[in-house]
Amino acid sequence: MAVFSSLTPVFVAVLCVVIGFLFKKSQRRQTRSKQERSDQTAKPWVDEDLQDDTEISSKHSEEDDDDWLDTTEEENLAHIPYTPAQYSATEMLERSEKFYSLMNLRRSVRFISPEPVPKEVIDNVIRTAGTAPSGAHTEPWTFVVVSDADVKHKIREIIEEEEEINYKQRMGDKWVQDLKKLRTNWVKEYLDVAPYLILVFKQTYGILPSGKKKTHYYNEISVSISCGILLAALQNVGLVTVTTTPLNCGPQLRSLLQRPANEKLLMLLPVGYPASDAKVPDLKRKDLNEIMVTV
Amino acid sequence: MAVFSSLTPVFVAVLCVVIGFLFKKSQRRQTRSKQERSDQTAKPWVDEDLQDDTEISSKHSEEDDDDWLDTTEEENLAHIPYTPAQYSATEMLERSEKFYSLMNLRRSVRFISPEPVPKEVIDNVIRTAGTAPSGAHTEPWTFVVVSDADVKHKIREIIEEEEEINYKQRMGDKWVQDLKKLRTNWVKEYLDVAPYLILVFKQTYGILPSGKKKTHYYNEISVSISCGILLAALQNVGLVTVTTTPLNCGPQLRSLLQRPANEKLLMLLPVGYPASDAKVPDLKRKDLNEIMVTV
Repeated sequence: MAVFSSLTPVFVAVLCVVIGFLFKKSQRRQTRSKQERSDQTAKPWVDEDLQDDTEISSKHSEEDDDDWLDTTEEENLAHIPYTPAQYSATEMLERSEKFYSLMNLRRSVRFISPEPVPKEVIDNVIRTAGTAPSGAHTEPWTFVVVSDADVKHKIREIIEEEEEINYKQRMGDKWVQDLKKLRTNWVKEYLDVAPYLILVFKQTYGILPSGKKKTHYYNEISVSISCGILLAALQNVGLVTVTTTPLNCGPQLRSLLQRPANEKLLMLLPVGYPASDAKVPDLKRKDLNEIMVTV
Repeated sequence: MAVFSSLTPVFVAVLCVVIGFLFKKSQRRQTRSKQERSDQTAKPWVDEDLQDDTEISSKHSEEDDDDWLDTTEEENLAHIPYTPAQYSATEMLERSEKFYSLMNLRRSVRFISPEPVPKEVIDNVIRTAGTAPSGAHTEPWTFVVVSDADVKHKIREIIEEEEEINYKQRMGDKWVQDLKKLRTNWVKEYLDVAPYLILVFKQTYGILPSGKKKTHYYNEISVSISCGILLAALQNVGLVTVTTTPLNCGPQLRSLLQRPANEKLLMLLPVGYPASDAKVPDLKRKDLNEIMVTV
């Protein structure tokens, strides 16, 4: 009180505004860092790169709104009759059983043979993945097929370094326990050994010949669907893989492979024949009545 | 100045704090509503339900951390040899070409015949989707197969009502333009006509017999991969579908179909034979060199 009465009212008013401003600023910083922390602890399995991506793309559409292309010129696309082959009920049942049996033999395999695989087969498998549907037919995928031994080894170094940190720090005990039964850890020999590594990038937006940006609706879901078809195509030719999502390696691998800024790594699939001593965990799949509900 | 000098310094100080507090509060409200708005305008194609989901699950893992199951009991799963069929290089090439040709004939079809389809075929197609890999083998999918005419019609009503709002308000001119070339709008006759609607739910977490929760790592990517295999299985038997992601209908459809809180609608696929007068837009797919990079 003694202090206050010795000050002029105007000075007190200014002081209050300054104190109030500083207080508000520190509050805001606290809120932000709390938010960041809670985001990270809440979903440790979400790749930091994937998190970044969301921010980047929302920034784009806010700031560069006029940059997004208007595709009115395509609206008058011709529509053509579609009359695909039709099978009898018996044939359908047979085909559905055969395809199920084939796909049901697929397993995620971490022991891959170094034996070379014809590149033409890989080409056809990628072509097949490219037949997937995508939001507004944007085809937002890039498949980088690596067979060069040096590049494969660099990929392995990047991934093992990050994966060791993931296992020891980022993932938490429960996740590591959940993976223990699959005997996975951060040593990924298959990255050197497999004749091909397929790195699947999602294009978070497209770039048109004019340099303008094009929205890629549902790009992550579209690329994942495409990977499903890729897995089916690999299984169909007797090749094996394991579906991996290298946590936090995206930016380094993108830079190593010189991919543009609109591409984010979604999955990495080492591909080859299974090693002769390949083993898989004795997992069972859920029964039909556990995954299907009929209404 | 005249006003200030007639007040006591203490009163001015209190007044400043009150004004500062009110100012801060209104600022915060502004920031929040700006944030909400920017989230919505930034990614209008992200389903509100999917957005909710993220918040719900991050809340769960923060607050109910001890509830998540520790699966140590499964860690000693046996590992068994894996020796699948291997094909000669010639056979592989032939198989890869044949499968590519078959998948390349797949198109998203919005004109579906009401002709009945054997349920056993649908069962096998769902079984096949269930062979997909999933994060830590959590199999986080539920396929709800609807053939009941009343339920199909209720689904249509829910979707058409929301889709009309999506097209007129939520999606924005550019997206609607992007879809114009595909001649899609909010009238979805196929929801009544198709013999089956497959609603694909992702389980954002699992529930164990003990009632405890189980983390479902990468559940959206896993379920999307499974949908890719589902599309391949449908194409293999000569059935058609269109991959749809009904925006903002998730909660209503979940409630209609009485699915539990951990399940979120990811996709809806109307399934049947193509209508005899089915048409598709004359789209081209990208060439191999546009989607594949070899290193």
